Amino acid sequence: MTRSFSLAVVAGDGIGPEVTSQALKVLDVIAPAHDLAFTTTDYDLGARRYHATGETLPDSVLEEIRGHDAILLGAIGDPSVPSGVLERGLLLKLRFALDHYVNLRPSKLFPGVATPLGDPGDIDFVVVREGTEGPYVGNGGAIRVGTPHELATEVSINTAYGVERVVRDAFARAQARPRKKLTLVHKNNVLVHAGHLWSRTVAAVAPEFPDVTVDYLHVDAATIFLVTDPARFDVIVTDNLFGDILTDLAAAITGGIGLAASGNVNPDRTTPSMFEPVHGSAPDIAGQSKADPTAAILSGALLLEHLGVPEAAAQITAAVEADIAGRGAVPRSTEEVGEAIAQSVTDLGAAEGVP
Amino acid sequence: MTRSFSLAVVAGDGIGPEVTSQALKVLDVIAPAHDLAFTTTDYDLGARRYHATGETLPDSVLEEIRGHDAILLGAIGDPSVPSGVLERGLLLKLRFALDHYVNLRPSKLFPGVATPLGDPGDIDFVVVREGTEGPYVGNGGAIRVGTPHELATEVSINTAYGVERVVRDAFARAQARPRKKLTLVHKNNVLVHAGHLWSRTVAAVAPEFPDVTVDYLHVDAATIFLVTDPARFDVIVTDNLFGDILTDLAAAITGGIGLAASGNVNPDRTTPSMFEPVHGSAPDIAGQSKADPTAAILSGALLLEHLGVPEAAAQITAAVEADIAGRGAVPRSTEEVGEAIAQSVTDLGAAEGVP
Ligand SMILES: CC(C)[C@H](C(=O)O)[C@@H](O)C(=O)O
Ligand SMILES: CC(C)[C@H](C(=O)O)[C@@H](O)C(=O)O
Repeated sequence: MTRSFSLAVVAGDGIGPEVTSQALKVLDVIAPAHDLAFTTTDYDLGARRYHATGETLPDSVLEEIRGHDAILLGAIGDPSVPSGVLERGLLLKLRFALDHYVNLRPSKLFPGVATPLGDPGDIDFVVVREGTEGPYVGNGGAIRVGTPHELATEVSINTAYGVERVVRDAFARAQARPRKKLTLVHKNNVLVHAGHLWSRTVAAVAPEFPDVTVDYLHVDAATIFLVTDPARFDVIVTDNLFGDILTDLAAAITGGIGLAASGNVNPDRTTPSMFEPVHGSAPDIAGQSKADPTAAILSGALLLEHLGVPEAAAQITAAVEADIAGRGAVPRSTEEVGEAIAQSVTDLGAAEGVP
Repeated sequence: MTRSFSLAVVAGDGIGPEVTSQALKVLDVIAPAHDLAFTTTDYDLGARRYHATGETLPDSVLEEIRGHDAILLGAIGDPSVPSGVLERGLLLKLRFALDHYVNLRPSKLFPGVATPLGDPGDIDFVVVREGTEGPYVGNGGAIRVGTPHELATEVSINTAYGVERVVRDAFARAQARPRKKLTLVHKNNVLVHAGHLWSRTVAAVAPEFPDVTVDYLHVDAATIFLVTDPARFDVIVTDNLFGDILTDLAAAITGGIGLAASGNVNPDRTTPSMFEPVHGSAPDIAGQSKADPTAAILSGALLLEHLGVPEAAAQITAAVEADIAGRGAVPRSTEEVGEAIAQSVTDLGAAEGVP
């Protein structure tokens, strides 16, 4: 029996459309072998629409998107739009409105991938970044703007409700992994109120997961370990802002943001989850077929996993691994990489005897 | 004519006293050749005093410290004290009360130093971290603590006054360096109020320094460049929290926090500035003579530079470089490293004909 899924596609700005079309191509290629059918609806959101209409994410569009099974997002942001307008008005609005409280960012150093680290060891961890609280809530403001007496605030909001649900999710993920290790990252020696809420919550939930080993690192120390001993990490759970910072660094040590996928997940499944590469819109190389679509394609694999088709997700990941292992020094176009991975998906399917 | 300086010494917790005594030894060794005399006053502050009296930094002690020419600090923090008590009540209280608005953290990869990066290039930059504002102000709180309805906030406070003075200081430092490049690091696409204040301030001050090239990076992207292309950085100016995170990473790529020195500087010289290694109290190795005193010794060099004796500062740095270049695989004790650097200081003095 064919399972049908409706996908909302927000290709967005810059290289977003280029990489998203490769991700969709790979989803199309893998669908028949797993009895999947995807219907897609494109949403024209981002800089173009903002300039044309002044809109970032109209409520009616948000409600339409809400009706889908999942969202595939390319990239948001353009230098022609003031910094923050599209990020807050579109990308973060989606994450917050759809209550994507688990921002899932796996980091794995695939064989054959160049890393800036001299001796990287075996890197394979996942960051569970809180997605609906912290300094990202948009609470803050400014007075006397543009005068010598300007004062600007940013308020980080943290609730027991919000912290506990993401901590519990992270524990469950750690429990399901071979090493069963959870590292809380915060800065509880300075941000004592938020930090102690996080620390106390981890301590309170820990007894429910007796097999999981827990430790704690200040965010500054965590950046040190990410470059000196990344193999120490298994699951990291952290605040929205710290997660933003750590996952770019994590991407850098595992071959760059061209390979880093992410999911903005609502584990309660009351809303569609959203899958997107960690990279941005890279306006400098947009439209030149230079962007690496691998991160977008791997985000498609995370989408499949979330939709309950882990075999298909694993097949895409294996195809990416195979393609990466064979990458030479000659740069390929966005389409060539997408095509090669799609071909590899087909080959793997044939090898396993699925049509 | 001998110049006399009074130093307040806060050796602090863990390895603090061990490394501080090596820094003082080197200052003593270098003093005569440059006609310097140091008088020191030890302040018993940190975990011991907290347990004995409940005090972190009594007002009377703060006032005494204020009377000195500079402060040499070892490290603060102990697992026996709840996280945040000594950090907020002592270390940050000193930085804030003495208006140390420039937290100066140079990063240089000395020849012969092991780095986790495979191809580090020529790393030589300085982070000017704001020291008296941002999420470090201690503004925030929590309600319904320990209940399922707990809510905790942390408020980042940023003023035109506070941002402008540190930005101007960073521009002046960039101006004085060969490459004359300033990078603002923030997250102005999310923290729009604080971020735009920083961006506008940099844009407003830039015309006063026409020779300085300016660019901007989001904090997440900055961590990527710190591991993929650290040579691109010359002077970084950033917020208190981002500076905390970036400078630990910067230390990691330049050989570790055992080598990273810092100054908490009040450029207006209305209060004593404070010099300390970037590393913490490392309670796990305290009292074992295993700590590397190099960062404390280099902090002494920053202190001399601030006190207007750059030749002496350069001599210490050269001595450290010479010692580092000769470091073998056999670990030396804290005293042995301090002794070797002190000897190297003496040798360099003799070579240059100073007694
Ligand atoms: C574009 C920006 C708002 C976003 C974030 O800060 O979350 C990005 O950096 C990310 O990590 O997805
Ligand atoms: C100990 C801690 C309060 C401190 C800070 O966060 O500033 C430390 O990490 C540092 O960088 O000096």
